[in-house]
Amino acid sequence: MEEKNAISNNEYAANIITIRDASMRIGPFVHKTPVLTSDTLNSLAGRKLYFKCECFQKGGAFKFRGACNAVFSLNDAQAAKGVVTHSSGNHAAALALAAKLRGIDAHIVIPKNAPKCKVENVVRYGGKVIWSESNMNSREDVANKVLQDTGSVLIHPYNDGHIISGQGTISLELLEQAPQIDTIVVPISGGGLISGVALAAKSINPSIRILAAEPKGADDAAKSKAAGGIIKLPEVKTIADGLRASLGDLTWPIVRDLVDDIIVVDDKEILEAMRLCYEILKISVEPSGAIGLAAVLSDGFRKNLAWNDCRNVAIVISGGNVDLSVLWDSLNNV
Amino acid sequence: MEEKNAISNNEYAANIITIRDASMRIGPFVHKTPVLTSDTLNSLAGRKLYFKCECFQKGGAFKFRGACNAVFSLNDAQAAKGVVTHSSGNHAAALALAAKLRGIDAHIVIPKNAPKCKVENVVRYGGKVIWSESNMNSREDVANKVLQDTGSVLIHPYNDGHIISGQGTISLELLEQAPQIDTIVVPISGGGLISGVALAAKSINPSIRILAAEPKGADDAAKSKAAGGIIKLPEVKTIADGLRASLGDLTWPIVRDLVDDIIVVDDKEILEAMRLCYEILKISVEPSGAIGLAAVLSDGFRKNLAWNDCRNVAIVISGGNVDLSVLWDSLNNV
Repeated sequence: MEEKNAISNNEYAANIITIRDASMRIGPFVHKTPVLTSDTLNSLAGRKLYFKCECFQKGGAFKFRGACNAVFSLNDAQAAKGVVTHSSGNHAAALALAAKLRGIDAHIVIPKNAPKCKVENVVRYGGKVIWSESNMNSREDVANKVLQDTGSVLIHPYNDGHIISGQGTISLELLEQAPQIDTIVVPISGGGLISGVALAAKSINPSIRILAAEPKGADDAAKSKAAGGIIKLPEVKTIADGLRASLGDLTWPIVRDLVDDIIVVDDKEILEAMRLCYEILKISVEPSGAIGLAAVLSDGFRKNLAWNDCRNVAIVISGGNVDLSVLWDSLNNV
Repeated sequence: MEEKNAISNNEYAANIITIRDASMRIGPFVHKTPVLTSDTLNSLAGRKLYFKCECFQKGGAFKFRGACNAVFSLNDAQAAKGVVTHSSGNHAAALALAAKLRGIDAHIVIPKNAPKCKVENVVRYGGKVIWSESNMNSREDVANKVLQDTGSVLIHPYNDGHIISGQGTISLELLEQAPQIDTIVVPISGGGLISGVALAAKSINPSIRILAAEPKGADDAAKSKAAGGIIKLPEVKTIADGLRASLGDLTWPIVRDLVDDIIVVDDKEILEAMRLCYEILKISVEPSGAIGLAAVLSDGFRKNLAWNDCRNVAIVISGGNVDLSVLWDSLNNV
């Protein structure tokens, strides 16, 4: 325990203590995900890369850590009434799975246009699907109705201390598995993942840099950092379907203070990184999951002298839930 | 060291001692590959599965273990003249990489019709490519000419004691990572992989069952076991391009004596298992790599009462080198 407490433990929605608590709480349920390395990708990047593979987490994404922590933090009376969220993504499946493990109901409001594979994940884990229209108003209205009808607890996908603490357990594992790392590159969307990762990592080693990777078509976090306050974009457009949310009031202060820089990449760079993940790392990733590698290979990172001494760079591969039907159709026609 | 030496150490081309030697020799160079698990696949299979992921091995396949052991077993005089093989597959890339690490030449005879991604792997690791026609006669003629011209050592892909010993190191790792396993399912082709795995596993725990998985269109091993001698097929046809070879005189006795059964599956079952690997396990596998999962999910295995008590089943995912250009073309048109 040689932690330097440069970060006050009361300043943010989570801290190293709540993250260690989360680690104890979710330990029996989560996978300790492996860290993969590749000499080929090291050569390509010009530094050593360590891939923390949350695509192997239960539910196929890091989201299960936070959802599990939130669900198992409820007292019995709260838990008995179940949980609810409106999400079509990995948080929905993660919440359904966590609720199933606790033996309680998960009400998942899903817009009618959600991708098939995401809905299948929710159903696989026993989530109770409630359909809404695709717009956010309808999603919130339906969720509110479920809240009133059932008395269940709303679990926000990122703007929640328990969620942030759960995601932070990634850093605890990572710094045990690869203590030599000096930099962690993390996808940014609503900010739950990077907030937890940054709080834990900088509490343990304040010299570690935390870099965010963000798609150009949804670069609200980069714009927010530049403006010094939360900026919401009128519309977002990126292949990275997991990275379209905006920062929340609980994640913003952590991103503002602890994220050293935000590297913006375009969809073409994301697709190229995805290809490298499949072909070289041999992992099945979703576009959001590949963005950290895209950032490390981008000119914006490589030509920035400030990052010259990032020699041992961890990249959080956030998830692997992607619809591969196109690939299978082709293969089945062989 | 509670090993029961049910297997005589002089009986076969390799044994637990040569496998432990190989483990020491190749330890500094190979990846210790992770073992992944999935509750979803456990439910589907009706038992606990442990996936030993050699797709994450250097070069993308288990082949590097054997190639590395063979190359580093050469004395300096032999090594100075380089190594040669005729192969278009994972052994070629593995041998090129092992030779590069020892700082010697690898001459790789490749038929003109070899898949692009396999050739790229050889080139990436610095192998010297020599083209031949696609038929086996031309491949052997060209390889023999290289042998005469250079004095280099031919490293056979599987019918070689050092190769078998190298592949056997998988079992040493696996039985440390998941000591509870009672069964190991292994793809079979020339028999180098399953021979090493079986020798090591049964030396450590004689009660472990070793089951081979073989494609229906190249089921020479199953036919050989039934006939009590090596059977070669006039032609083979399967999507599993890594599983088209026939048993050799060094691997056959081990397969005959130590492989408990051979489960034959068709290409459709292999493709379905591949889909599960990508979608559920989130790993990028080649068809040969997915065949163990196909076997465990097949009726031939599930309905055979003899395997009812296989409760903790390890599956060797042999490799992940597959041409994904079809997938990327589709994705790039999004």
